[in-house]
Amino acid sequence: MCDPGSVQSRTPKLTAKGRATRERIVAGAAAEFRARGVVATTLDDICRATATSKSQLFHYFPDGREQLLHAVAQHEADRVLLDQEPFLSDLTSWAAWDAWRDAVVARYREQGTSCPLGVLTTSLTRSTPASQEVTARLLEQWQRKITDGIVAMREQGAIAADVEPEQTGAALLAGIQGGVSILMQTGRLTHLEAALDVGIAALRG
Amino acid sequence: MCDPGSVQSRTPKLTAKGRATRERIVAGAAAEFRARGVVATTLDDICRATATSKSQLFHYFPDGREQLLHAVAQHEADRVLLDQEPFLSDLTSWAAWDAWRDAVVARYREQGTSCPLGVLTTSLTRSTPASQEVTARLLEQWQRKITDGIVAMREQGAIAADVEPEQTGAALLAGIQGGVSILMQTGRLTHLEAALDVGIAALRG
Repeated sequence: MCDPGSVQSRTPKLTAKGRATRERIVAGAAAEFRARGVVATTLDDICRATATSKSQLFHYFPDGREQLLHAVAQHEADRVLLDQEPFLSDLTSWAAWDAWRDAVVARYREQGTSCPLGVLTTSLTRSTPASQEVTARLLEQWQRKITDGIVAMREQGAIAADVEPEQTGAALLAGIQGGVSILMQTGRLTHLEAALDVGIAALRG
Repeated sequence: MCDPGSVQSRTPKLTAKGRATRERIVAGAAAEFRARGVVATTLDDICRATATSKSQLFHYFPDGREQLLHAVAQHEADRVLLDQEPFLSDLTSWAAWDAWRDAVVARYREQGTSCPLGVLTTSLTRSTPASQEVTARLLEQWQRKITDGIVAMREQGAIAADVEPEQTGAALLAGIQGGVSILMQTGRLTHLEAALDVGIAALRG
């Protein structure tokens, strides 16, 4: 058993080349987990898929599987936001909002009823705080970017001055999360689309 | 192993007294599952807690544990809606909408980061369709009641004629689901409250 705190503390200091190798292992592991499932994928599978020796793997992830899972969860969380770019970081025109809406819907249409990040965070059984931290950070960054967009549009006068950016951003993020959760339970995109369309229409006023 | 279809088909025909006994077992089992956890609760625990013999239990639930879990999941799903009454079924004034909003927030504040229904549906491993059916039916009934409220308010002229009840109801339900999911991940009610407050404010126009 590793205690939750150790996952972070035992990460070695890395050179640029070391960081690149670590990132290559994480990306390869993410692909293996997506293809085979988390439970069915062994560290040997990941070594084979990424052309890494077991001792190299333990150099980058001294705490083993749990620490690798945590890194892959973080990688999948980053990908959730990356898939919404370049629109999410530049919600400064209605065209950008519409393009962002379409990017979010397309991303989750492709992902369907599976949830690579959810599978990973529920697999992090030995370090629930680490899993909660990944999710909390993702939600916080996501909401920050939506809120920044609302602030920018308000400054332009495109969104009414009485719209409260933090609260409205939180409501829009909740709608997206709920839409994705209903998609995973029912296979239908209707609620995600409704949340985005009604939410953005309300911003337009 | 029982196949998913058998869960429904082997339910015996019951008299009024039989239905009352069955309901008593289901309510008792729900309380045991909530208190001890689904995995830790045995059929013997449920017999003891509900003063029922094992043969009586199998009379009402011939397929055993899986069928009982399904009945308890349905019971918890019904309770989600009941906890929002009498407001949810009568959203015909802004006072009712506000009281409903408060009832939803209070319900989930009390429930916190646990989710009795979610624990049950993820425990129904051998009959995923049965679990999906419980969730899908809950979402459908919930959305129907919200949409009925929007239609009623539109007929009174309190909600603008260009508000599309089905789509707006779907968006509001998505916001609630996302707010609850964020509450379970972070322990914070902020997003649930934002989804309800922003959603209802948009309806008011």
